[in-house]
Amino acid sequence: MAKKDRMTGVLSPVVTPFGKDYAPDAARFVRHCKWLLANGCSGLAVFGTNSEANSMSVAEKTNLLEALVAGGVPAATLMPGTGHCALSDSIEMTRLAVKLGCAGVLMLPPFYYKGVSDEGLYRNFAEVIERVGDERLQLYLYHIPPVAQVPISLALIERLLKKYPGQVAGVKDSSGEWANTKAMLDAFAKDGFDVFAGSEVFLLDNMRHGGKGCITATGNVNPGPIDNVYRKWRSAQADTLQAGITATRKIVQKQPMIAALKAIIAHFGNDPQWKTVRPPLVELTREQEAVLIPELKAAGFAMPGLAG
Amino acid sequence: MAKKDRMTGVLSPVVTPFGKDYAPDAARFVRHCKWLLANGCSGLAVFGTNSEANSMSVAEKTNLLEALVAGGVPAATLMPGTGHCALSDSIEMTRLAVKLGCAGVLMLPPFYYKGVSDEGLYRNFAEVIERVGDERLQLYLYHIPPVAQVPISLALIERLLKKYPGQVAGVKDSSGEWANTKAMLDAFAKDGFDVFAGSEVFLLDNMRHGGKGCITATGNVNPGPIDNVYRKWRSAQADTLQAGITATRKIVQKQPMIAALKAIIAHFGNDPQWKTVRPPLVELTREQEAVLIPELKAAGFAMPGLAG
Repeated sequence: MAKKDRMTGVLSPVVTPFGKDYAPDAARFVRHCKWLLANGCSGLAVFGTNSEANSMSVAEKTNLLEALVAGGVPAATLMPGTGHCALSDSIEMTRLAVKLGCAGVLMLPPFYYKGVSDEGLYRNFAEVIERVGDERLQLYLYHIPPVAQVPISLALIERLLKKYPGQVAGVKDSSGEWANTKAMLDAFAKDGFDVFAGSEVFLLDNMRHGGKGCITATGNVNPGPIDNVYRKWRSAQADTLQAGITATRKIVQKQPMIAALKAIIAHFGNDPQWKTVRPPLVELTREQEAVLIPELKAAGFAMPGLAG
Repeated sequence: MAKKDRMTGVLSPVVTPFGKDYAPDAARFVRHCKWLLANGCSGLAVFGTNSEANSMSVAEKTNLLEALVAGGVPAATLMPGTGHCALSDSIEMTRLAVKLGCAGVLMLPPFYYKGVSDEGLYRNFAEVIERVGDERLQLYLYHIPPVAQVPISLALIERLLKKYPGQVAGVKDSSGEWANTKAMLDAFAKDGFDVFAGSEVFLLDNMRHGGKGCITATGNVNPGPIDNVYRKWRSAQADTLQAGITATRKIVQKQPMIAALKAIIAHFGNDPQWKTVRPPLVELTREQEAVLIPELKAAGFAMPGLAG
């Protein structure tokens, strides 16, 4: 894939709907993915942190990914998470993503052992790239130290990019530290390494410094206004538009993020089943919902067309 | 299973041999398990942290567990690790363990999300117990906050034990804090909740306060002397014997533990293939080996019969 075809814009780490028995609900998943693409997302980072991806088996994720493509979601919009603790799982999911024609994959480092060396992490990513052995693979590294606890260092990126310049495509930086995102941009953007901010709070800054967009939790519920910042980042209104999406983000993130996103979709989509999260997560309490929903309404928040 | 049949003594979290291509090596695995049982281990906590369990897929672990039983390792000696980030994986591996007749399972909490609630962890363990739905299940909770970062609190144990007194059998405490192990003993040992120290360093203390033994990394290489402390803990020599195994432990843990255990087995078993670890781990350097092996030899360390 030529670099010009790479993903840009606003990607949503799509939340995964579950039934009352915690089984993944492919029909609701396809429906939500289509709503996101119709309402501002240029891509879908399914199986991310906000997707409860690590709370699902490889078989469950395989079924969901195949259901998306079979259900008419273009593979060119997909950047599934394929990084697992087990090298064999990472290879299996990455192979599937490439086979289905996904635009890229977003790879967590193996995250069980802590304090591992860059050499060990290099071997992990290199082994996946070599075993998949397909030029079409576009690998985005997923740096999220607050959760994974295992970071992707600049030195590791440099080494991987040097060895696999055609396949190491970029990064999602969920460190929450703009200084780190900026360091990635300064070091590697000129080499065609695409940096996505891990939150829309940094979207405008990221665009102004050579980044390619953002992959953000709240992309699940507020894709239109976030996409508007992406499209108008060079305009005079950019800072004002950015302030608007940052304000919405701040309302949502007062609550536990994943449960909050699902509660919002359940409310504005009039579909209570969406509230279900898999253990170890728990849904919002009534009290948390009673804060979240009115605050969003007071801010003029809407999810056009979601309730069908 | 009546409580009198529960496991006691020294269990080894068995290291997993890999081929040069990182494929699990079932033949070497069965052989090492039999050596351990013949040399002091009363049980095998296969698929623990030291087994690189989370670096393997469920399918790979299924094959290994079936190979052990087919290869003549008694299921009554087995306490496989069955806790995963994905509820569905935990259920699948736990079901398999019960079906094969394993004496127990050792369950990590789901460890991707950090700062999760006890309610969410309770739901995870309860869901596994309910879905497996088999009275034979003996579940040991695995508390290892330095690695998993998600702790098993006393309040969580209390709640699980109250709801599932026949199935919540005990804990492995790898906190490294004796005060925590003691608190677990004081609170629950009287209710038939079996506490295993996560290191032989605490074996004698654990036995003196009502514990049942230890599940320890170095059980992979030093099972005889550790078992000797277990068998003689009421004797006059107990403190001297404990000092001996603690000294050996201290030599080993100067190096990265898993790579060190494999280097020791490779050296004393004259089988270099054992050194292989899966990414993100790396094998010991020559320099690390050149410190470890002579120190062990100088301390009189041996692995009788390992080299065949």
